[in-house]
Amino acid sequence: MNAHAPRYRTLDMPGILALLSGLPDIAARLGGDGAQWTICEVSDGNLNNVFVVDGPHGGVCVKQSLPYVRVDPSWKMPLDRTFFEASYLRDIHPLVPGLTTRCLHFDPDLFVLVVESLSGHTVYRTALMAGAQWPRVVPDIATFVARATFGTSVLCAPFEHVFERQAVYARNTTLRRITLDLVLDDPYHDHPRNHWDDRRLDDVVGRIRASCTVRRVVDGLRLRFLTCPQALLHGDLHTGSIMATATDTRVIDGEFAIYGPIGFDCGMFVGNLVLRRFADPSPDAGRACVHDIHRFWNGFVAEFTRQWATAHPTPSDPSGPCAFFLPDAADASSRGERTPGPSQDPLQDLPPGRAAFLRAVFEDMVGYAATEIIRRIIGYAHTADFDVIPTHEARTVRRRAALVFAYGLLCHHGTHDGVNAAFGALAGQGEVE
Amino acid sequence: MNAHAPRYRTLDMPGILALLSGLPDIAARLGGDGAQWTICEVSDGNLNNVFVVDGPHGGVCVKQSLPYVRVDPSWKMPLDRTFFEASYLRDIHPLVPGLTTRCLHFDPDLFVLVVESLSGHTVYRTALMAGAQWPRVVPDIATFVARATFGTSVLCAPFEHVFERQAVYARNTTLRRITLDLVLDDPYHDHPRNHWDDRRLDDVVGRIRASCTVRRVVDGLRLRFLTCPQALLHGDLHTGSIMATATDTRVIDGEFAIYGPIGFDCGMFVGNLVLRRFADPSPDAGRACVHDIHRFWNGFVAEFTRQWATAHPTPSDPSGPCAFFLPDAADASSRGERTPGPSQDPLQDLPPGRAAFLRAVFEDMVGYAATEIIRRIIGYAHTADFDVIPTHEARTVRRRAALVFAYGLLCHHGTHDGVNAAFGALAGQGEVE
Ligand SMILES: Nc1ncnc2c1ncn2[C@@H]1O[C@H](COP(=O)(O)OP(=O)(O)OP(=O)(O)O)[C@@H](O)[C@H]1O
Ligand SMILES: Nc1ncnc2c1ncn2[C@@H]1O[C@H](COP(=O)(O)OP(=O)(O)OP(=O)(O)O)[C@@H](O)[C@H]1O
Ligand SMILES: [Mg+2]
Ligand SMILES: [Mg+2]
Repeated sequence: MNAHAPRYRTLDMPGILALLSGLPDIAARLGGDGAQWTICEVSDGNLNNVFVVDGPHGGVCVKQSLPYVRVDPSWKMPLDRTFFEASYLRDIHPLVPGLTTRCLHFDPDLFVLVVESLSGHTVYRTALMAGAQWPRVVPDIATFVARATFGTSVLCAPFEHVFERQAVYARNTTLRRITLDLVLDDPYHDHPRNHWDDRRLDDVVGRIRASCTVRRVVDGLRLRFLTCPQALLHGDLHTGSIMATATDTRVIDGEFAIYGPIGFDCGMFVGNLVLRRFADPSPDAGRACVHDIHRFWNGFVAEFTRQWATAHPTPSDPSGPCAFFLPDAADASSRGERTPGPSQDPLQDLPPGRAAFLRAVFEDMVGYAATEIIRRIIGYAHTADFDVIPTHEARTVRRRAALVFAYGLLCHHGTHDGVNAAFGALAGQGEVE
Repeated sequence: MNAHAPRYRTLDMPGILALLSGLPDIAARLGGDGAQWTICEVSDGNLNNVFVVDGPHGGVCVKQSLPYVRVDPSWKMPLDRTFFEASYLRDIHPLVPGLTTRCLHFDPDLFVLVVESLSGHTVYRTALMAGAQWPRVVPDIATFVARATFGTSVLCAPFEHVFERQAVYARNTTLRRITLDLVLDDPYHDHPRNHWDDRRLDDVVGRIRASCTVRRVVDGLRLRFLTCPQALLHGDLHTGSIMATATDTRVIDGEFAIYGPIGFDCGMFVGNLVLRRFADPSPDAGRACVHDIHRFWNGFVAEFTRQWATAHPTPSDPSGPCAFFLPDAADASSRGERTPGPSQDPLQDLPPGRAAFLRAVFEDMVGYAATEIIRRIIGYAHTADFDVIPTHEARTVRRRAALVFAYGLLCHHGTHDGVNAAFGALAGQGEVE
C-alpha cells in the first residue's frame, strides 16, 4: 500500500484491539483483558482514523494515518503525519504537561499513535457552538502557546539543540505545503479547492483579491511562514484542536507541527475566536470576543516574558550566548511577573528588545488571524461555526461581515497598536458589517 | 585521531601527491606524471592546510581540514568544515560559474577538498593593501551574492527543495557557533578571546559595551543570524575570501556556508571595504569607498531583482505558489532591468513588497557591516589591513576612528535611508574621527 512502509496496513477496530493487546503498558492502563475493552470510532476531522478504547481501568485514544485524506480518498498523502504528531507531543509535553496529552506509544510501521484519552472533554468548537462559557480555555491556550514556543526556541536553548529539532520538523513538508497552499495561497486566487455557497460573497472576495495591499501583506505572511523558524508551532491551533471541560484544557492534533513564526499559532487561535463571534453577532458575544482576545494576548505576553525572565534572570548572569535582550541593570527588577489589565499595553514596561520581539509576534498574530478567517469562509476547509445559524440568508450576511472584517485587518496590517486597535470593533453593537 | 573518521590522517605534501595520483580526472588535469608535479603550501588562514599543486597541463588547489584550528592546535575542532565547503561549491557553482571555483573532488574520509587552482590571482585584501584598483571586484561580488542567495532561496524554488538543502547546512554548527560567538557576542563583553594592543581604544570599547542601544541592536542581529534562513550564505565573505586579478574575480573558502539572512554576506563584505578605508584615510580612499559601497548595493539590488523578475515574469504567469510580491499588472514592465546611478535609490521603482524585502536586507547589511568592523579590531581574528600603517600611534588613531564609525552605525541602526545616509560620511576629507 505504501512503498516506504511495507508493514503498513489500515487497521480496523479488531486490528486496533489486537495491536493494543500486544502492548503491555497500554493493556495495563486499560485494565482487565481485551475482551472487556470497548472501541469506538471518533474520527471527525479530515485526515485520519481516530478511535477511543476504554477498559475497566482507563482509556486511550488511537490515531492512525491513512495513505490518503480520510474525507477524500482520491487525495493521496504520505503516512508520516502521526510521526510528527508523536514527535511534537514528546517535545512539548514536558513544557506543558497539563495542557496536552502524553504520547503513550508510536508504531513507526503502522503509523499508529496512542495517547491518553480525554473522557468528559468536548471539542472546544463544539462546546462554543452549544453556548459553553468556560473561563479556563483562553488563558490556558495563552500559557500553552507561550511555553511551547519559548521552550523550543533559541531564546531558551543553545541553537545546536534547537537546529536538531528543526531538522526533524523540516521533513513535515506535506502538511506545511497544505497550510502554505490552502491557508496562505488558494483563497487569494481562483483555485478549484476554494468554495463558498452564495454568490453574494463574490464581490467581497473580488475586492480582497484585487487589493494590491492584501496581496503584498499575504505574500509577506507566506514568506515569513517559510523563513522565520522562531519556535516549534502546533501549526493547526484552531478551536477544533482543543478539547476542554469547564476546568481542564487540552491541545490535541499536533500533526502540523513545524518551526515557524510564533504569531502563526496565536493568529490561528484568535482567528477562530473571531469566526465564532461572527457566527453569534449579539453584542454580548462581541464584547466577550474582544475580552477573550485581550486575555489571550496579555496572558501569552505575561507567560512568555515570565519564561524569558526565568531563563536568563539578570544581566550579570547572562548564562552564555543565548541570552537575548536582557533587561538593563537599571530595570532588572521583577518585570514580566505581572499580568496587566485588559486596557493596558502588556508590552509597555518590557525591555525594549523584548517588546520589539513581541510586537512583531503581535503583527503576525493579526495577519495570520485574518488569513485564517478568510480561508475558513472561502477556502477548502470551512468550520462548523456558521452551521448553527438558521437561514442561508443570515449565514451569508455573517460570513460576509467576517470577510469584510478580515479584509480590513489585512489592509491596515502593521499599523495596529494593540488588541483594541485591531479587534476593538468586534465589540460593536448588534450585527457587524 | 578522530573517532568519526577512522581513515583520517593529516596528509603531508608527499601524501597529497600520492592521493592525487590515484584520482584519474585530477591527474589528467595536472598532466604528465606525478614526478613532474610541484606542490607548495599556501595556508595563510586560521583553520586549514592548503596546497597548490601544478603539473605540465594545469593546477589544482587542495584543502584539508585538521582536527584543530591550524593557528592554535589546542583549540580542537571537528573535521567536517571541508564537507560544507564542498557542498557549498556544488550548490552555488551552477549559479555563479565564473565567480567561484569548481569542486573537482571531495574525500569524505580524509576531508580533502580539491578545487581549480587560481594562478595569477591574488587574495583581494592583499591586493588592496598593495594599492590595487580593480574595477571588476565590487560589481562581481554584488552579482555573486545576488545570484547565490536568490538561487538558494524560497523566492526561486519550492520550499521542499530549499528545506532539504537547509537541513544539510543546519549541521554546520561548529562554524555557525564560531561566527555567533566571535563576531556577534564576544566583542560586546569581556572575553579572553578578545584583544587589542592599545589601551587608548579602551574608552570607545567601553562606550560600545555600555550602550543599551548597541546591545539591543546586536542582540537583534544575533537572533536574526539564527532565525532568518532566507538563503544559503557564504558566511565568511571578507576581502580575504576573494581572489582576483584586474579582470577576474573568484570567491573562495565557503566552509562557513549556512542558511541565514542575506544581509549577512552583504554586510561582511561592506564592513571589510570600510576597514580598508580606515587603514588608508586619504580623501580619495574615502570617496572610493563610498563609491564602492554604492556600486555594491546598487549592483546587488539590480541583479537580485533581475533574477526575481526572470523567475516569475508576469502576474498572469505566477508559476505556482512560490511567486512572492509579483509586480501589479499595471507596472509589470521591464522593471529591475536597469541599474540606477549611484545617487538614485535603487529600491524606489520596485514593486512595494520587493522594495520592503530589500530594505530589510539593507538594514541587515548595515548592522552586520558594523559588527564586522568591531570584531576585526577588538575580537579574536583581526585583519591585516592596518598593518601597512607605519606607526603604532597612527594605527591606534585609525582603528579608533573605525570603531567610532561602527558604533554610530549601530546607534542609528534602522534609520539609515540608503547608502549615503549610512556610509556617506566616509567620503569626508582627510582623517576620519
Ligand atoms: N485524546 C483524545 N481523547 C478523546 N477523543 C479524542 C482525543 N483526540 C482526538 N479525539 C477525538 O477525535 C477527533 C479527531 O481527532 P483529531 O483532530 O486529532 O483528528 P484529525 O484526523 O487529525 O482531524 P483534522 O482533520 O482536524 O486534522 C477529535 O475531534 C476528537 O473528537
Ligand atoms: N583555488 C585556489 N587557488 C590558489 N590558491 C588558493 C586557492 N584557494 C585558496 N588559496 C590560497 O590559500 C589560502 C588559504 O585558503 P582558505 O582561505 O580557503 O583557507 P582557510 O584555512 O579556510 O582560511 P581562513 O582562516 O580564512 O578560513 C588563500 O588565502 C589563498 O592564498
Ligand atoms: Mg489533524
Ligand atoms: Mg576558511
